[in-house]
Amino acid sequence: MMPGLMQDRDLAIIDILRFAATAHATREIISRNVDEPMWRYDYATCLARTSQAAHYLQSLGIAAGDVVSSLAWNTHRHFELFYAVPGMGAVLHTANPRLTDEHLIYTITHAGARALLFDRNMAQIVERIRPQLPDVEHFVMLVAAPSDTLDYIGYDAAIAPFNAHFDWPTLDERAGAFLCYTSGTTGDPKGVLYSHRSVVLHALAGGLSGAMGFSAFDVVMPCQSLYHATAWGLPFAGTINGVKFVLPADRMDGASLDELIRSEGVTFTGGVPTIWTMYLDHLERTGGDTGTLERVFIGGSAVPRDMAAAFDRFGVSTRQIWGMTETSPLGVVASSTPALAAGGRDAENEQLWTRQGRMQFGIEIGIFGEDGEALPHDGETSGALKVRGPWVVERYFRAEQSACDAEGWFDTGDVATIDALGFMRITDRRKDVIKSGGEWISSIDLENIAAGCPGVRVAAVVGVHHPKWEERPIMIVERHDGSDVGEAGIREFLDSRVARWWMPDRILFEDVPLTATGKIDKKVIRARHLHILDVR
Amino acid sequence: MMPGLMQDRDLAIIDILRFAATAHATREIISRNVDEPMWRYDYATCLARTSQAAHYLQSLGIAAGDVVSSLAWNTHRHFELFYAVPGMGAVLHTANPRLTDEHLIYTITHAGARALLFDRNMAQIVERIRPQLPDVEHFVMLVAAPSDTLDYIGYDAAIAPFNAHFDWPTLDERAGAFLCYTSGTTGDPKGVLYSHRSVVLHALAGGLSGAMGFSAFDVVMPCQSLYHATAWGLPFAGTINGVKFVLPADRMDGASLDELIRSEGVTFTGGVPTIWTMYLDHLERTGGDTGTLERVFIGGSAVPRDMAAAFDRFGVSTRQIWGMTETSPLGVVASSTPALAAGGRDAENEQLWTRQGRMQFGIEIGIFGEDGEALPHDGETSGALKVRGPWVVERYFRAEQSACDAEGWFDTGDVATIDALGFMRITDRRKDVIKSGGEWISSIDLENIAAGCPGVRVAAVVGVHHPKWEERPIMIVERHDGSDVGEAGIREFLDSRVARWWMPDRILFEDVPLTATGKIDKKVIRARHLHILDVR
Repeated sequence: MMPGLMQDRDLAIIDILRFAATAHATREIISRNVDEPMWRYDYATCLARTSQAAHYLQSLGIAAGDVVSSLAWNTHRHFELFYAVPGMGAVLHTANPRLTDEHLIYTITHAGARALLFDRNMAQIVERIRPQLPDVEHFVMLVAAPSDTLDYIGYDAAIAPFNAHFDWPTLDERAGAFLCYTSGTTGDPKGVLYSHRSVVLHALAGGLSGAMGFSAFDVVMPCQSLYHATAWGLPFAGTINGVKFVLPADRMDGASLDELIRSEGVTFTGGVPTIWTMYLDHLERTGGDTGTLERVFIGGSAVPRDMAAAFDRFGVSTRQIWGMTETSPLGVVASSTPALAAGGRDAENEQLWTRQGRMQFGIEIGIFGEDGEALPHDGETSGALKVRGPWVVERYFRAEQSACDAEGWFDTGDVATIDALGFMRITDRRKDVIKSGGEWISSIDLENIAAGCPGVRVAAVVGVHHPKWEERPIMIVERHDGSDVGEAGIREFLDSRVARWWMPDRILFEDVPLTATGKIDKKVIRARHLHILDVR
Repeated sequence: MMPGLMQDRDLAIIDILRFAATAHATREIISRNVDEPMWRYDYATCLARTSQAAHYLQSLGIAAGDVVSSLAWNTHRHFELFYAVPGMGAVLHTANPRLTDEHLIYTITHAGARALLFDRNMAQIVERIRPQLPDVEHFVMLVAAPSDTLDYIGYDAAIAPFNAHFDWPTLDERAGAFLCYTSGTTGDPKGVLYSHRSVVLHALAGGLSGAMGFSAFDVVMPCQSLYHATAWGLPFAGTINGVKFVLPADRMDGASLDELIRSEGVTFTGGVPTIWTMYLDHLERTGGDTGTLERVFIGGSAVPRDMAAAFDRFGVSTRQIWGMTETSPLGVVASSTPALAAGGRDAENEQLWTRQGRMQFGIEIGIFGEDGEALPHDGETSGALKVRGPWVVERYFRAEQSACDAEGWFDTGDVATIDALGFMRITDRRKDVIKSGGEWISSIDLENIAAGCPGVRVAAVVGVHHPKWEERPIMIVERHDGSDVGEAGIREFLDSRVARWWMPDRILFEDVPLTATGKIDKKVIRARHLHILDVR
């Protein structure tokens, strides 16, 4: 090889904020806070406070390579930590307050955190778990002033004495920056350690038009939590483009979001479907509209068609986005292309609303068969979805082994199709796929179709043991209040809509068990009914 | 440091085309060619031919680390070489056909090229210089079929037998990819060796909304030459966004461009002011309009105000862009921000039209005084413009020493101001700045103001020796045909527009000498008049 002769400068997260503080110095960041008035400042002032925070953490003895945990909502102080902690070469572990105490203690301990910074309304949790966190030396409350009854340092008072300039060190771009744990439906949560390189590349790619498509004129309200895979990287992809940020703290109810959208002129927001259900319900109740809103990015689970259509009626475009903590999380985004648009508006929406999204530069996606063979991208063949790229996990934190195969692919655990236009559709979690006589049945497809049957509120499909076919699907149904739809009605509805051999062997009417994060708990259903089809 | 745990995958130029060939497979690339009909294909087919080209070059013995020179216009075959050569780990030297034979021979020899691929109408040049290129083993004409009278291999026939799949090697992202020489107004041309890393980062940053702002719906016609700093990186920033490309070969006259814009629905184009003068003249002559055109990026020299206003009347926005071969070339882009737009349309245009552009993420810019001290960004203070970042040159090709100072800054040789909004304005080339009594006078500012005086066609200002003030400005004026404006008239015009001490000591009416690239040749003027103000 002949080495290139360009400057060998490392990519650094703090350079994103330093850039915005110069080129977009007066662009605003607005933040709700817990029991405090609205906070308003700009990128230049944000960098100044971020510098003070770095000095303060340094004064506590926090140094490069150390881990600091946060337990915080979407606020300006949390945003400052997103830059201060990696900027000084330390790692920010964004603990997830929705975890059980046990898992919270596990992740903070596993991370090796030396300090914990938390929002006011996390104090109760902190009080509970503190005795079991002997290695955490510093507890700091992210408030203007802590209440008298609680013996904590208040963040604003703590950083105030320090210099508003910090001499940010030059770091290796492969240094760790953020430690995010997966929710861990099975076993302990697993940590993914993002690097400066992965975060900056993700921010550049995430800002492109096929992904978030931010411009300096955008007003961005992240409703995905900052502790969930760094809110899909918005604090970086937005800042690199100089957007105005509107941070909603933990107030994600419809009325609160509507108020912020109107008062601050929000153009872009993103989050899980549950939030948008609440928001649209609020608009329907109040007869309001979406104001300045242009784009809503929806991830976490598939976008209900009704939701996409409702936003469409307001002139707001929804884009599905798929990713996971292990992918930083940008995987695919359902943005249109001329090839797609050529089919007309209805076909375009149909594709955008029923696919998780299309390929993005920087993250390769592929589907593979049971023997690891690459499968065709024909939109029909489904296989194990694998990804690779510079913002995909290589190895979990403190793990001995790679999380990837010999070719560098990370197996997502999803089963998906990819079509000729590069659009990916998840057909199932691999553990939920039903293997019947050597063929695969998609539990998600069956559930989605059954959900369209009048009277059905929720349908859950799992594969259970079958003496002849290995596995066969059974369906658990919860009816809408007042509905008396029965097995025959559902079978008739399914009959014309699914292949004959996809028809569930049993349809049972009982409550659908949910996990802590509100997803259907298929483990419980399978355990309950595993042998229901055995010959007795 | 605690190392991050994300995949350590190198950035590779070929991955940009591989991405587009998958996610934007059917998006078109259209190309004019020398004496051939219009060429049309898509990204998928482009990758196939690019793969064949790589096989062919490999069959010639070209390997990783080798250099291949091109002498070609903006065509699809040149575009293929942009991916095939770096893709196989070799370096593409894009020779500049506008150089003198002597400089052409110098650059091709200095590059160490083993092959030269050239367009049909370059054959005469090649015939002339070939005897002096003993190290070039292969001469290939970029044509469907070479004419019988010339004994060259034709590219299309040469690549045709080869496999349309190439097993692209994994490369170190710091490997060299493109070798571009500066025009070298003084001394020999100097080579800048871009790396895969610098090109991919530049493509990601260049695609952002504050720079090119490409979307998959854009139709991009690069009118800057592919051999000039890789046409500002458009072949990469465009491809990464899946744009349709329209390549005009060497036909940059107004009528040809107008025809392509209309027939192919071009939305975005870019090039030097001269081209747009011809294009606007053509529209005026024919009474035509700009059709689908939305954005014109103009670089190479400052955008004349009339030109920006003319495009504005057609509803086309112009953006100045500043950079140099040494900066890949993205430096600054004059794109708007809310802070700028807040001042109203006229103030916004005034700023955008009179500044080279605003800061972009990834390339730091600063101004420095004579002792190297950082100067304030107040829009008034001017100083030596320096840049640094991962797509800025570190060292020229085959140079022993760094081109940068100890802090990593590359000195551009320009003198500039930077304002509070991050906008940079070049006030002079450093060698042209006039140092009068310890203060600086901008020759460019004086020239631009004088050019507004009725009757003045061109004004050139240089500093010449002065016994008391060290240097004082003198002005050389060319009048419009039929104008009789005299020294008194010009002085009266300048009087209310420049500081008293900026007033030129002499105003002379004579022809303004030009360099080979059409710029004012201040060296000649200075030599002619250096002692005009000496006491005799």
